[in-house]
Amino acid sequence: MGELLAGLIDVELQSGSTETLTRQLYDRLRATILTGALPPGHRLPSSRELARQLGVSRNTVSFVVDQLVMEGYLDVAQGRRPTVAAAANAGLAAGRPISRGEPRALRTSRWAERLRKADWPFASEGRPKPLAPAHADARAFPHDIWARCLRRAARHALTGMAAVNRASLQAALLRHLVEHRGVRAEARQIIVMPSAQASIELIARVLLNAGDIAWLESPGYGGARAALEAAGAAVRGVALDRSGLAFKGRRDQPRLIFVTPSHQHPTGRLMPVHRRQELLTLADEVGAAIIEDDYDSEFHYDGRPVAALQGLDDTGRVFYVGTFSKSTFADIRSGYAIVPPNLVDVFETAQRHSGQIVPAPMQDALAEFIDDGHFAAHIRKMTRIYRARRDRLVQALGAAAGDHLRIEPPAGGMQLLAHLDPHHDDRDVSARLAEAGVTARPLSRHFTGAITGQGLFLGFAAWNEQEIDTAAAVIGRVLRELAVSSGARKRRRKA
Amino acid sequence: MGELLAGLIDVELQSGSTETLTRQLYDRLRATILTGALPPGHRLPSSRELARQLGVSRNTVSFVVDQLVMEGYLDVAQGRRPTVAAAANAGLAAGRPISRGEPRALRTSRWAERLRKADWPFASEGRPKPLAPAHADARAFPHDIWARCLRRAARHALTGMAAVNRASLQAALLRHLVEHRGVRAEARQIIVMPSAQASIELIARVLLNAGDIAWLESPGYGGARAALEAAGAAVRGVALDRSGLAFKGRRDQPRLIFVTPSHQHPTGRLMPVHRRQELLTLADEVGAAIIEDDYDSEFHYDGRPVAALQGLDDTGRVFYVGTFSKSTFADIRSGYAIVPPNLVDVFETAQRHSGQIVPAPMQDALAEFIDDGHFAAHIRKMTRIYRARRDRLVQALGAAAGDHLRIEPPAGGMQLLAHLDPHHDDRDVSARLAEAGVTARPLSRHFTGAITGQGLFLGFAAWNEQEIDTAAAVIGRVLRELAVSSGARKRRRKA
Repeated sequence: MGELLAGLIDVELQSGSTETLTRQLYDRLRATILTGALPPGHRLPSSRELARQLGVSRNTVSFVVDQLVMEGYLDVAQGRRPTVAAAANAGLAAGRPISRGEPRALRTSRWAERLRKADWPFASEGRPKPLAPAHADARAFPHDIWARCLRRAARHALTGMAAVNRASLQAALLRHLVEHRGVRAEARQIIVMPSAQASIELIARVLLNAGDIAWLESPGYGGARAALEAAGAAVRGVALDRSGLAFKGRRDQPRLIFVTPSHQHPTGRLMPVHRRQELLTLADEVGAAIIEDDYDSEFHYDGRPVAALQGLDDTGRVFYVGTFSKSTFADIRSGYAIVPPNLVDVFETAQRHSGQIVPAPMQDALAEFIDDGHFAAHIRKMTRIYRARRDRLVQALGAAAGDHLRIEPPAGGMQLLAHLDPHHDDRDVSARLAEAGVTARPLSRHFTGAITGQGLFLGFAAWNEQEIDTAAAVIGRVLRELAVSSGARKRRRKA
Repeated sequence: MGELLAGLIDVELQSGSTETLTRQLYDRLRATILTGALPPGHRLPSSRELARQLGVSRNTVSFVVDQLVMEGYLDVAQGRRPTVAAAANAGLAAGRPISRGEPRALRTSRWAERLRKADWPFASEGRPKPLAPAHADARAFPHDIWARCLRRAARHALTGMAAVNRASLQAALLRHLVEHRGVRAEARQIIVMPSAQASIELIARVLLNAGDIAWLESPGYGGARAALEAAGAAVRGVALDRSGLAFKGRRDQPRLIFVTPSHQHPTGRLMPVHRRQELLTLADEVGAAIIEDDYDSEFHYDGRPVAALQGLDDTGRVFYVGTFSKSTFADIRSGYAIVPPNLVDVFETAQRHSGQIVPAPMQDALAEFIDDGHFAAHIRKMTRIYRARRDRLVQALGAAAGDHLRIEPPAGGMQLLAHLDPHHDDRDVSARLAEAGVTARPLSRHFTGAITGQGLFLGFAAWNEQEIDTAAAVIGRVLRELAVSSGARKRRRKA
């Protein structure tokens, strides 16, 4: 039987280091047993004989045999040569799969099914093209300075387990947020998260049980809808008026209310103070939490940035959510949430549990980047650039498609909403534009419940003047073509 | 009334840049309105008069007034001076909080309550002390080389949105895992996660509904129990025999089975091939998924590392989980899971949704670290060091406490289990050791269901020879003291 063994495996043994030979012999012998080519009970030659047949050292053979005995592929009785173990290839004989029939498929959870059905994130968009919204211009970011901060942070890494949320970043970020966003908090309330989306998801999980009612602006942010629905919430769309969320007269009692008060997503509207206070009063009355997503409020062009809703809250129910992915670049995958003081512990436990953590060197590098003034300088620079791009897009769209679009120019942020006449199907327009190389998200996808408007949601921040002009021209051409063909249809219908 | 206004705010205005003055005036005027010191309907002086009173430029005043009008703090009627808006301080008059009574507390979810109750992670341990298990020796890691990899990766960052799981790391890691761990997969099946814990948590969420049965080794890994329970699973502890999970004769049908087949946690035992195949057969029969947590199998000291269970699976039901936090250093916060090919999409969606993502520069840096051979070299180096430390701990414990402990020396990994006589209370021993500066996790905390053993779970990897000797001496002393006092009690009882 020694010949059989050698015939099965020696062709594979190539010369090399002992380590390489050992691994080859182990892999081949193990595979030979697993496929059933060496039947159970088969007795191996002596290690001396095997070494001779295979042209390897006796030590190598002994090592491999010991390993296979330990793993249960071979049996040894005292003083006898090893045999192939009975159990080693049960069901695997001659390469047959373990299962007789088709493998039984794994069922995924209801949570996974809800995620699959959510139309967010817009995975189909692929690599961003003009005028994809929600993107910062990563080309203008000082990657070299950032890389140096990262290197320094990595070299000075602690040798113990660092805190989930680094005090260095909490302190630097708090100073920034107090000065620029008017938040009120202690540093320890800052939870450093991989993204704003992760923050919303974690807050929803910590606060909501299945069936709890959550309010969402309609039109609103699809990512929030996906997060709330995944947490099992009954998500109710609340319509907007000029002051934002218009909840007067509603009788349902939410557990959670999601708002974007500084630049409403997607309309760009500002929620004025009276509505903010009504919202805080209502939330306190019904015991609801509020998530304030302040995703791109660093960039404000007309007047000062509007202070955060969180700073008006005296009752510890506003969760402030922000992100570095708009203020620096998307791939930084770092954001933050400010949570009420009495919930810091449970959030840190939840973070540790789910791994929604930003690596320590990233946090330390961000702290240095903020403390050394690079962050504020970058925001100032990008504010100038983005303001010019907003103006450029408003002007270019007006010139190219002014007859077909009503633009709502935002006072800040990275994107704008261009309303279409209601007879348009914005998904159709969006699809036509995608074919022409322009990304324009349909407004109708942002509604929860009744769709009461058609429009295009367009980003200007990540795109330079030429890209903006080209895209605006394409939008104008596509809308004219659609108007002509729709006119032709109407004429045919009349005739 | 101009005097009132000036009296309220001018003391706060310090000289400075226009930007500083603007912010000060805005902040003070807004606060004055919010507290009700300026009542609704109160008419402001003209901007010329205000500028004179406050000693600032008229432009500054106009800018601030426009901002407050936009935010709804002030009303303007055409051609008239602005008045304080009626709604601006509703409920906030004279600094009174919005809520009449106590703020209504936020209720946390059942999920959050389950997390709070879980006794994992061992947060109480604080900064790791000898002989805390599950820690790598971060002092021996080449932080400088790693920092250079990180810097290079950050400088070469893409300017678009990178993939959640970077192809560079997937390819490098797959080569490593095929060669060293015997896994079988395509690169795209590798999901890069912040930790092994996050991987287990995400797999549980994607696969389990509330009430589904999950099997866990008992004794087993507390982090897995916490993750499965948080996902709502009915977690059943399955006892171990010499070959690991002893499930023969059980009638309950699990949806998920969690195992550590290479170095069972905490016993260090190896699951031999016959048990592996029985497990795969059973899982296929009942349609269960298997999580193979291969947390520290890079480090194997007696013989070759045992190939992964995943490599034996022909039915796509084994989820392979690994981590860099043992093979490099804990704060790297990077791990990975190999998921079945047909579930890659849903896992990527879930990752994006929850932010359980490793930042792109970390992934690219890890890819370079692996490709350039630094990772394999570090593992080789640490294998030598850890083997010596294992031997040292076994020997030191034998010398210092051999009468009180039965050590199960593991063939690999970073920790060992020392059994105590059943009359000991290992939590008591652990508490006494903690007072003496030594971390020793009680075995009894690792059981799910019946506690069938008492022992100490001790790490040797992160601690040098001197730390090991000192800790072993402390363990010997504490166990002798406990034996003496227990003997004294017995004698008293007899007398």
